[in-house]
Amino acid sequence: MKSGFVLKGDICYSRNPNVLHTRQDGYLVCEKGRVTGVFEQLPERYGDLPLSDFGGKLILPGLVDLHCHGPQFAFRGLGLDLELLDWLEAHTFPNEAKYRQEAYARTAYAMLVEELRRGPNTRVCLFGTIHLPATLLLMDLLEQSGLVTMVGKVNMDRNCPDILREESAAASAADTRRWLKDCAGRYRNTRPILTPRFIPACSGELMRELGQIQREYHLPLQSHLSENPKEVAWVKELCPQSSCYGDAYRAFGLFGAEVPTIMAHCVWSEEEELSLLKERGVWVAHCPQSNTNLSSGIAPVRRYLDRGLRVGLGSDVAGGCHTSIFRAMADAIQVSKLRWRLVEDGEAPLSLEEAFYLGTVGGGSFFGKVGSFEPGWEMDALIIDDAPLAAPFPLTIPQRLARVVYLSDDRHIVAKYVGGSRIF
Amino acid sequence: MKSGFVLKGDICYSRNPNVLHTRQDGYLVCEKGRVTGVFEQLPERYGDLPLSDFGGKLILPGLVDLHCHGPQFAFRGLGLDLELLDWLEAHTFPNEAKYRQEAYARTAYAMLVEELRRGPNTRVCLFGTIHLPATLLLMDLLEQSGLVTMVGKVNMDRNCPDILREESAAASAADTRRWLKDCAGRYRNTRPILTPRFIPACSGELMRELGQIQREYHLPLQSHLSENPKEVAWVKELCPQSSCYGDAYRAFGLFGAEVPTIMAHCVWSEEEELSLLKERGVWVAHCPQSNTNLSSGIAPVRRYLDRGLRVGLGSDVAGGCHTSIFRAMADAIQVSKLRWRLVEDGEAPLSLEEAFYLGTVGGGSFFGKVGSFEPGWEMDALIIDDAPLAAPFPLTIPQRLARVVYLSDDRHIVAKYVGGSRIF
Repeated sequence: MKSGFVLKGDICYSRNPNVLHTRQDGYLVCEKGRVTGVFEQLPERYGDLPLSDFGGKLILPGLVDLHCHGPQFAFRGLGLDLELLDWLEAHTFPNEAKYRQEAYARTAYAMLVEELRRGPNTRVCLFGTIHLPATLLLMDLLEQSGLVTMVGKVNMDRNCPDILREESAAASAADTRRWLKDCAGRYRNTRPILTPRFIPACSGELMRELGQIQREYHLPLQSHLSENPKEVAWVKELCPQSSCYGDAYRAFGLFGAEVPTIMAHCVWSEEEELSLLKERGVWVAHCPQSNTNLSSGIAPVRRYLDRGLRVGLGSDVAGGCHTSIFRAMADAIQVSKLRWRLVEDGEAPLSLEEAFYLGTVGGGSFFGKVGSFEPGWEMDALIIDDAPLAAPFPLTIPQRLARVVYLSDDRHIVAKYVGGSRIF
Repeated sequence: MKSGFVLKGDICYSRNPNVLHTRQDGYLVCEKGRVTGVFEQLPERYGDLPLSDFGGKLILPGLVDLHCHGPQFAFRGLGLDLELLDWLEAHTFPNEAKYRQEAYARTAYAMLVEELRRGPNTRVCLFGTIHLPATLLLMDLLEQSGLVTMVGKVNMDRNCPDILREESAAASAADTRRWLKDCAGRYRNTRPILTPRFIPACSGELMRELGQIQREYHLPLQSHLSENPKEVAWVKELCPQSSCYGDAYRAFGLFGAEVPTIMAHCVWSEEEELSLLKERGVWVAHCPQSNTNLSSGIAPVRRYLDRGLRVGLGSDVAGGCHTSIFRAMADAIQVSKLRWRLVEDGEAPLSLEEAFYLGTVGGGSFFGKVGSFEPGWEMDALIIDDAPLAAPFPLTIPQRLARVVYLSDDRHIVAKYVGGSRIF
């Protein structure tokens, strides 16, 4: 059983989008992997717990990445001169095909996992590839890292090159069942998540099979939605009976409601799709850098927040180049300003507080009580030595947070806790 | 006299916007601070020159920042929730007023100069403040750093708080002359540049004085142009006789032609202003991150390139948070994609090659033959150890450059040469 402990430092966290809670020289008490509370003075009853004094350093909740493609880390930063569908054909599919080879997968995934371990994210939802051994290998490495993750073997049986197309819906489903059997009981911190790539790559038959598997195993699900105008038009052609892209997932019982679901992007979601996302409690993974790099557009996040949708942030590596959700926070603020200026001046830009909320509580809620230091919440924490980001005048904790969001890198992270365990 | 030397490594540079020149395991020969040539095999006649073997590392030209506010480095990343004019009032002016105090200026500028020294830029055009001692202090520190820079004592005599307003046009001009006298003969690598803040902060009388000083001293000039819609509208009110914002500078003989001139931003320049920029050979400093952070918009850089305008990149710290022009390259590509998607699909996004050109040759041309490894050009070079950015498969030199642009930081820079001198 995990024992209790106390962290001392400059604590900063969110519990709603508009307010930062801060406590200079405060005490964060953790017991059994969960937060007991944040205190100005350490209550006597915790006086016997071991205390780590991070005086002068920031203590922040761990960050949550709701959308990352594990195999694509290998080619991040490359080939970013194409739009989504052409980019998939030219770069993504050929690169993902390499994960048939276990030796390659081992090398590539080790690089990814080491980056994730050292970075500021404590929880990540990842796409693997169609390949069973490689996906298990990724899960093994993630388990060893101490991060808490959900990982999906990808399903795709149409509209992709032979080398990456599963033989049939039945074969894809059988592989998925085999994968779930292999996962069972194997991990403490690594959960499988159903991962149909997106409607264009999944036949109706495959989606029905996945609906069946979902009902049997009660798995969460992740996929893509309304990322690029050409993709949206293509789905309209492929599913003429569906009233919107989201409705095409819904038709197979794979769009939220009883199925905890993440849909990445939602850049071009219109009224009906927004209502469906809201009704069915789907998490939107907002991936601002990817939507920029692939010329997809700028998602109307202000509208999502106003409607009370569930929203978190995603790196979408390798549409995005950066795994850090600090970067995604900065990107989210920045693109929201361009949207306000160039598209819709009724939608106010995101504030730093809102972006911080999205990257902690917003995405964390997909994992449960994660992303804040409220009592009873799982204790994911980053210790940040922001002294190298100091100004020639004193900074408040919110100002120091702003510096960390815009300017920090992995050098500044001196310790990292996930679910109450220190992973470095 | 600087002696000659040879650098060996993987060389990559630009001489026009569309082509990267690369030479794996090549030799870069430097004599008297200038490039002699790039060779596949080292010619015998250079066999006696000392050779530094940077095998496996990238050798790139130094980067050029055409627009940076020295005093604003202190508050980078803070207060980015306002538009330009409100941001100047709330954050910039109060922060710049602090540079009256030399002790503060010394601390703050030392932090900036150390960041610049360690970063990838080798040439920078900087705004100081109105303060003489602080501006000389900044110049002293820059001179010690080994960077080549142009620095301006700022002129501003209206529309700003008392604490930062020069007493009168005459007082501002007198201070400027005193500053130029103090600079004379003092530096090898640090040049003064005339720096009227922008039309709203400079009276007509002051602009006439500066025109006179410019003609006497033959100084280059830097200022701001058409950054924000409200600013543009304000200039229209202030200068009803001018046909556009640029024309307001021109009226005082301070808009290019015989005066080498940088105008930062040009986000909202219309047809007439573009023609004026072109005719008069003005350099546009494109500052994509600042234009995003301050919700200014996205400058139509494709249009500038198509018309043959002179364009370089600017960090615009602290409208931008990052001093590195690698970051400005990535930002320039990214915002050009959003502009293509959201504003004008006739303007193709920038390529990596184009962004690299802008951040090297494009800005470097303001300093002379700077930013390339063509024979006779000044030898500014970065040695980049990009091994930590490796992929699980071999990368070409252009792919490695892409990684460096999107993902590198100062850790990756292992040596830096400016004008043929190694500064670390």
